[in-house]
Amino acid sequence: MKFVPLLDAAAEKNHSRLCVGLDIDMSRFPQNLRALSDPLFLFNKEIVDATKDLVCAYKPNSAFYEMYGVFGLTSLIKTIDYIHEKTNVPVILDAKRGDVGHSSGAYAKAAFEVFKADAVTVSPYMGHDSVQPFLDYQEKGVFVLCLTSNAGNRDFQALGCNEPLYLTVARHVKEWNHYGNCGLVVGATRPEELREVTKITGDLPVLIPGVGTQGGDLEKSVKFGGKRAIINASRSILYAEDPGAEAKKLRDEINKWR
Amino acid sequence: MKFVPLLDAAAEKNHSRLCVGLDIDMSRFPQNLRALSDPLFLFNKEIVDATKDLVCAYKPNSAFYEMYGVFGLTSLIKTIDYIHEKTNVPVILDAKRGDVGHSSGAYAKAAFEVFKADAVTVSPYMGHDSVQPFLDYQEKGVFVLCLTSNAGNRDFQALGCNEPLYLTVARHVKEWNHYGNCGLVVGATRPEELREVTKITGDLPVLIPGVGTQGGDLEKSVKFGGKRAIINASRSILYAEDPGAEAKKLRDEINKWR
Repeated sequence: MKFVPLLDAAAEKNHSRLCVGLDIDMSRFPQNLRALSDPLFLFNKEIVDATKDLVCAYKPNSAFYEMYGVFGLTSLIKTIDYIHEKTNVPVILDAKRGDVGHSSGAYAKAAFEVFKADAVTVSPYMGHDSVQPFLDYQEKGVFVLCLTSNAGNRDFQALGCNEPLYLTVARHVKEWNHYGNCGLVVGATRPEELREVTKITGDLPVLIPGVGTQGGDLEKSVKFGGKRAIINASRSILYAEDPGAEAKKLRDEINKWR
Repeated sequence: MKFVPLLDAAAEKNHSRLCVGLDIDMSRFPQNLRALSDPLFLFNKEIVDATKDLVCAYKPNSAFYEMYGVFGLTSLIKTIDYIHEKTNVPVILDAKRGDVGHSSGAYAKAAFEVFKADAVTVSPYMGHDSVQPFLDYQEKGVFVLCLTSNAGNRDFQALGCNEPLYLTVARHVKEWNHYGNCGLVVGATRPEELREVTKITGDLPVLIPGVGTQGGDLEKSVKFGGKRAIINASRSILYAEDPGAEAKKLRDEINKWR
């Protein structure tokens, strides 16, 4: 199944626009888990088991697996396999890749064929030919960084002449959507700017991080994120006492604003 | 040793501004090599053995290792270890990473502590706080994408009001250089624009890809790249009949224009 219908089906079945970010941090794991042979996978397995009927997507961030080297990346592959085996929830690999064409082709192959992600996040800085090799996997989703949730989003994303760069990126992404597999990443920390983006991009999926620890506005993010808003939360769910209950609470809160 | 003195020392010892890009492609390997148990590492070992007295840096692109999964990344670690063991030539991991602060911290840990690179390439799109965790490794080098060598460099890098974005990036990188560990990536395909960048950044190291297959101008790249220009060539050396001879030829040609 293509990515957008896959996302829509999971969102409908679970009545949810919530994505859980699998940003593992071994130092926050319970002591008994750390003693086991594959704590990263086992931690994720528990989260997936507790939340699989409450989410529309999972989003492992590649950084947190790479920092554990080959061991971490093996756990990432096992985690994605497990999600595919036990659920119909798509996996967005948050990797923020982008390179010249043949190198981007290698990254796309890694994300979609080795790690078997259903979608990936990419950086727009290098332009259309750096994103195209990802788009060429027509069955897969490609979320282009547009306006990020961090303070540094002012440095370059807000620059421009007639309009800020993030709106120019949004216009390009809409043009790049020939196969219907484009999405965008827009942080929750500037909801008015999110509204400007979705005015341009309409029903394109928008992955919205930054509602938890980063303090983004949930109500406005849901309202301005459009029909295919995907609200991401990571640490606030992963390290809650009861991750399932926390996910349910946030899912229901999101639904209140739809 | 800090990265810039390490780079300078290798450049002086080998009388070279040439960087060899270790962009492996198993489909172009000789049949007998492909049959062995770790062809990626063995291929790189032959290249390093043939070129270690001719280069100022090696630059493996992470994409080409990730596409072979855990197997490829294991070979990447072995390759970097081998370079450190047998040479004093620094390794620039071409990874083009960048994320919100704590995620960039995890990427920096991966690049510098797991893969043990001496420097890394990063994307500026997310701004200063996405680059800072890399800069905080004060002994390591950080090459920020400024103007890339691909056609898509017009899409966003050339936009701007008073000046194109790549010059704004160059100005920021110069400001970020508190620890003396910043560099830039500027492609060889637009030498006049390289000149504008180095007018701003002075003696900061500039990694210049795009002279080989991509057809960049070697003479102008060397002349406009400044004192710490690093001219990268990948496939034109790796897949030459005699990689050592090809590296020597290119090194000497570069020296002609210095």
